[in-house]
Amino acid sequence: MKAYQIETILSSNRKQKPVTEQLEFGTIFTDHMFIMDYSVERGWHDPRIIPYQPISLDPAAMVFHYGQTVFEGLKAYLSKDGEVFLFRPDRNFSRMNQSNARLCIPPIDEELAVEALKQLVKIDQDWIPKAEGTSLYIRPFIISTAPHLGVAPSESYQFIIILSPVGSYYKEGIHPVKISVEQNYVRAVAGGTGEAKTGGNYANGLKAQEEAAKLGYSQVLWLDGRENKYIEEVGSMNVFFKINGEIVTPALNGSILQGITRDSIIQLLKHWNIPVIERRISVEEIYQSYREGLLEEAFGTGTAAVISPIGEFLWKGEKLVVNSGEVGQLTRELYDTLTGIQNGTKEDPFGWRVQLR
Amino acid sequence: MKAYQIETILSSNRKQKPVTEQLEFGTIFTDHMFIMDYSVERGWHDPRIIPYQPISLDPAAMVFHYGQTVFEGLKAYLSKDGEVFLFRPDRNFSRMNQSNARLCIPPIDEELAVEALKQLVKIDQDWIPKAEGTSLYIRPFIISTAPHLGVAPSESYQFIIILSPVGSYYKEGIHPVKISVEQNYVRAVAGGTGEAKTGGNYANGLKAQEEAAKLGYSQVLWLDGRENKYIEEVGSMNVFFKINGEIVTPALNGSILQGITRDSIIQLLKHWNIPVIERRISVEEIYQSYREGLLEEAFGTGTAAVISPIGEFLWKGEKLVVNSGEVGQLTRELYDTLTGIQNGTKEDPFGWRVQLR
Ligand SMILES: Cc1ncc(COP(=O)(O)O)c(C=O)c1O
Ligand SMILES: Cc1ncc(COP(=O)(O)O)c(C=O)c1O
Repeated sequence: MKAYQIETILSSNRKQKPVTEQLEFGTIFTDHMFIMDYSVERGWHDPRIIPYQPISLDPAAMVFHYGQTVFEGLKAYLSKDGEVFLFRPDRNFSRMNQSNARLCIPPIDEELAVEALKQLVKIDQDWIPKAEGTSLYIRPFIISTAPHLGVAPSESYQFIIILSPVGSYYKEGIHPVKISVEQNYVRAVAGGTGEAKTGGNYANGLKAQEEAAKLGYSQVLWLDGRENKYIEEVGSMNVFFKINGEIVTPALNGSILQGITRDSIIQLLKHWNIPVIERRISVEEIYQSYREGLLEEAFGTGTAAVISPIGEFLWKGEKLVVNSGEVGQLTRELYDTLTGIQNGTKEDPFGWRVQLR
Repeated sequence: MKAYQIETILSSNRKQKPVTEQLEFGTIFTDHMFIMDYSVERGWHDPRIIPYQPISLDPAAMVFHYGQTVFEGLKAYLSKDGEVFLFRPDRNFSRMNQSNARLCIPPIDEELAVEALKQLVKIDQDWIPKAEGTSLYIRPFIISTAPHLGVAPSESYQFIIILSPVGSYYKEGIHPVKISVEQNYVRAVAGGTGEAKTGGNYANGLKAQEEAAKLGYSQVLWLDGRENKYIEEVGSMNVFFKINGEIVTPALNGSILQGITRDSIIQLLKHWNIPVIERRISVEEIYQSYREGLLEEAFGTGTAAVISPIGEFLWKGEKLVVNSGEVGQLTRELYDTLTGIQNGTKEDPFGWRVQLR
């Protein structure tokens, strides 16, 4: 293991910590942040932990104009015994480098990033909420900072990590959401940036989400951009179905984000000897299996909610109710097991948990 | 005409103006900028002209994460007689509001925006370079500023205008560029954000541009995202072809940006009684017309270059040379006429020029 030199300047002005019960998602930030600069001459340099503070940029900075950004999202958990766990942090930084390659952003040193993250979380570990289901949300991101209006890769960047204590996603226990199948808007297409975690994908999705919300649906089910036929993701989660006893999820095709929760669920199912098939799934197929009474469970997977059971799909005006709108048995088992591995109450046969020391 | 209250704070520290011959595109900015804030409670408020200065934002500001941004681009020209002209500025702000609608950004007051732009350019009018072909590039843009990590429209925004003196796009006179037909990457797809001027579209395009540059091509010809068959745009310009005496350009289909130069060229051609047809054009059709010797001219249109003649297309390894790699006669006439209307040396039968007083 290399030793990384990360300079640390501690805040002399600590903020008041929030009341756990009032925590929302991503609105409160801790006392410190990690930051590192990139220039063509020096590469990535000056990794440092500093007091949480505003970023000051030239109005011509490329991030304001051409969207050359990437980000990641993961969580730190506090166990009952006071241990701090990260969940597969190496995967986030390797995915960040995949996103970087697509967006023409110079790659980061993944080991340094994990090390920086550990040091930062350690410094702010008193911010990790204790109650069941709560955690510290971690947001690494890279922005293009060169003050230049030409459409070309930026010549300078900042890599930043900020931390936000978040409440339980399910305040009244895990419960199913209602999803509208999106027929007009498209999140991503083959040859686009769907597989990268970059801002434009999310800006693009806002309009569909807004229109679904008006109809009382919390997210949309995204179909592919070429034929508007095949299922890709749900909101900003990957999606799984249990049909007639078989678990299926859309195969990674270049326009679907390679979710780390998705990968973990697949490994967990295999570990349980439950077959899971990654393949192309049309919305028509889901409809048919629903009509035949074979659509048993459906759920989304992602860092924020971990597992989000789906209780209803709206498609072409018809409501497809899944499992009488209740949380399915497998869905619940997966949720309990994965969150248990994450927060240290369950065994971790995969070595996914990384303890902070 | 409403009277708009725009507060002005002049800079007490004027920068040195650049040497015209050394001007590049979008690297130098003037002494002042326009800025206006949005909040849910107050709507758009506090329009003001202030000294050009950095923007300070919370690291959690949405623009850094979810790409909720729009921008515009237009130019101010200085005539031989010292008059200052804008070119169809109302069109840019109405297009900005179209982009805003797609990106869930609250609409701006278009009249106020034009008025603010006029006042700003007037204050910095000494920055407009005088030499032929030079101009003052104007960049209005909106960024989402709320420090909140949830994927939802921002609750606060800033609308900003900055100005940059730019040199002649063609330092040695107008000349044709070489274009590679893009086969792997996709700029935009029906249902996406292609028709909006938003950062993500440009971040998406960087990779294709980088790969084309490696092969010695300056831009790519984008094909549609559904079938990878139909021509959409060239780099960040719209595209026209002259085939067997007939002018054709891709019809606006939702994934093509509605270029103001494109619209001006179409009006100009109609004014000259030259038929111009907006329709779907496959790259195969262009190839066939090339093989039959009927592909006479091709050019891109956009604010930066105005008209950019195309001398060669690379498609499936084959080089399609257009008009022996020379600037076509119609291309040149359109360039001369449109730039003449813009800089005041030619008559403006359309009322496109807006003089600053
Ligand atoms: C578009 C999209 N799909 C899927 C996911 C799930 O990925 P992960 O399980 O790594 O959080 C995310 C992010 O959380 C996402 O933004
Ligand atoms: C993607 C894209 N297409 C076309 C154009 C041309 O539009 P306009 O003629 O309004 O400059 C632009 C912008 O300049 C653009 O960014």
